Amino acid sequence: MPCASIVSAPSYVFPFRSSSASTSSISPTAISLTKRTWRPRIDTASFGKCVVRATVSIEKETPEAERPETFLRGVDEAQSSTSVRARFEKMIREAQDTVCSALEAADGGAQFKEDVWSRPGGGGGISRVLQDGAVWEKAGVNVSVVYGVMPPDAYRAAKGAPTDQKPGPVPFFAAGISSVLHPKNPFAPTLHFNYRYFETDAPKDAPGAPRQWWFGGGTDLTPAYIFEEDVKHFHSVQKRACDKFEPTFYPRFKKWCDDYFYIKHRGERRGLGGIFFDDLNDYDQEMLLSFATECANSVIPAYIPIIEKRKDLPFTEHQKAWQQLRRGRYVEFNLVYDRGTTFGLKTGGRIESILVSLPLTARWEYDHKPEEGSEEWKLLDACINPKEWI
Amino acid sequence: MPCASIVSAPSYVFPFRSSSASTSSISPTAISLTKRTWRPRIDTASFGKCVVRATVSIEKETPEAERPETFLRGVDEAQSSTSVRARFEKMIREAQDTVCSALEAADGGAQFKEDVWSRPGGGGGISRVLQDGAVWEKAGVNVSVVYGVMPPDAYRAAKGAPTDQKPGPVPFFAAGISSVLHPKNPFAPTLHFNYRYFETDAPKDAPGAPRQWWFGGGTDLTPAYIFEEDVKHFHSVQKRACDKFEPTFYPRFKKWCDDYFYIKHRGERRGLGGIFFDDLNDYDQEMLLSFATECANSVIPAYIPIIEKRKDLPFTEHQKAWQQLRRGRYVEFNLVYDRGTTFGLKTGGRIESILVSLPLTARWEYDHKPEEGSEEWKLLDACINPKEWI
Repeated sequence: MPCASIVSAPSYVFPFRSSSASTSSISPTAISLTKRTWRPRIDTASFGKCVVRATVSIEKETPEAERPETFLRGVDEAQSSTSVRARFEKMIREAQDTVCSALEAADGGAQFKEDVWSRPGGGGGISRVLQDGAVWEKAGVNVSVVYGVMPPDAYRAAKGAPTDQKPGPVPFFAAGISSVLHPKNPFAPTLHFNYRYFETDAPKDAPGAPRQWWFGGGTDLTPAYIFEEDVKHFHSVQKRACDKFEPTFYPRFKKWCDDYFYIKHRGERRGLGGIFFDDLNDYDQEMLLSFATECANSVIPAYIPIIEKRKDLPFTEHQKAWQQLRRGRYVEFNLVYDRGTTFGLKTGGRIESILVSLPLTARWEYDHKPEEGSEEWKLLDACINPKEWI
Repeated sequence: MPCASIVSAPSYVFPFRSSSASTSSISPTAISLTKRTWRPRIDTASFGKCVVRATVSIEKETPEAERPETFLRGVDEAQSSTSVRARFEKMIREAQDTVCSALEAADGGAQFKEDVWSRPGGGGGISRVLQDGAVWEKAGVNVSVVYGVMPPDAYRAAKGAPTDQKPGPVPFFAAGISSVLHPKNPFAPTLHFNYRYFETDAPKDAPGAPRQWWFGGGTDLTPAYIFEEDVKHFHSVQKRACDKFEPTFYPRFKKWCDDYFYIKHRGERRGLGGIFFDDLNDYDQEMLLSFATECANSVIPAYIPIIEKRKDLPFTEHQKAWQQLRRGRYVEFNLVYDRGTTFGLKTGGRIESILVSLPLTARWEYDHKPEEGSEEWKLLDACINPKEWI
């Protein structure tokens, strides 16, 4: 059995449970898939040696002229009315349409540019980007579907299985929607949301090792200035979505969000949070599919009313520069810490889809410190000391 | 013996040989030093478990009102006329003065702001930053001196010693100068240089394991537009400095530079290269000290003549935007790949000194592709396919 490896990753769909090994342990020998055969192509230079290397290559995506009905492969497609993976793909593609329409309407002129792509081994994605609109400087809304192979080490770590069992590569399926919306006006906040579903097959050579599935995602707000009513509104919509399913969800996922979007070297969060969850499989699968759907459907009611109120407020150069400094923090978080981004960069995911999360423009001033008590200081304080907004 | 760990890192002085373990293997239990005692303070939560953790903390730096004569500790200070560490510190501090004076003169008005800091365990640094000058958008020139402790695993990897030997933590000394200069005019190139010297003590509990030293560094040019005469001039000055010592240096270090400043996820180099070397100890130590000194002294003659020719050229908005896109690539390289930056961020180095390398402003456009044959395309082509300039 050759070293197994990861073969592909969609933009933002990080295919490992956060409880599993770090990315450094899942980047061994390069493998990629040939057309729909599932036969791994081993990098001959390191075949048989199982050396851990920095480079992990995956097959390049192929641009497509048209959106396919589904990115699911044949066998999955046949079960399309019933399987969770098929219903999740349908949900994220509908959410992409709804969100993009609402954003275009709020922008009042600019339109999303669409790129469709597929991978020979199965799966693909639709990237939509609106750049230099009236309201948004840069807005990306992507969906993707990935068929890949998980290295056995990562699977063992995820399962907590005894290390003397050596299952082979574990095929996985992942699908997700991911979006970052950066407005121009410094009083209009940046929004990020991401919902993803993940399944592994049962490994063939480890009898009894189970098939796994889980959900992950979240929606979070990153303003440069605090309007308390906006942050309250945003968190209230998240809480309402959570409360429909489980009263512990909002407090738990709110804290998880504050913990996840932490820029460790700054001691600051990226923004004012929202909800974030990962590895969620300890509830009914149908319930979690409905929950992810509810969350995705809550994006527009949580965000657009804030944009409508702030998009045309007059602002100064000083306020624009502060927004740009906070955009610099956004870049720092995404390039240094965000698991989807760092994983995508290492495995050779579609770079333009992965880095569409970066703002159009950003700024770094040496040793910038906002004046104590100023509006800028208040934002920074809330990023350092997360607050309960509702 | 508890897990040993790294305790401090200067801005850009990455204290491990590039042939040694990756940063992920050198970030175990948190340790920091108390005042000049060398007694490691172990994070009690993970003491005895030796778990590899993401967090490694080091003692915070203390701001100082005045530049000390030296950052060397007492015992080193006494040998200050003869030791390599003392002469290296003297060299980088003189280089800092010379470079800053030349930059201020070329800028014609703006002055460097200086921050001096020390660490209780020994060492410290001087950060100088010129921001929003007439010529430079942001220019940082830092020196630092670090006393730290290297984890035994990293030492073993560096030495290639048998893994059944278990030396304790290895004290190390590191000193370096590091600088990034970002001009405003898109025709005036960014410059980076960095020279560093490193020593380990012999580990006390592994008899026969030797004391080690090595030099590292380089100077490289990152224009947004190619003026062939500028790039030729820059590389010629680097070659002349190399040729004074060893004819193989320039071709070897030129290639090393092209290989090091590689943005893997883009398939591009950050810029048009120069020289880069690391782990250099297989020559006479005095010769390498002279070589590092020659390289540091070559920075101004290599760079300032180019700046003088380009700093006042008229430019369009389009050309400024292209410079900003290339600045975005600079950010990507530094935050994702640069070993000094990523190591500094992980270990809690002085953030403002580490991130002074980031440009004042940067830009990311979705799927930007310069028109084939254009000046922007030529630059990109030279970043993808490194050229021999002389």
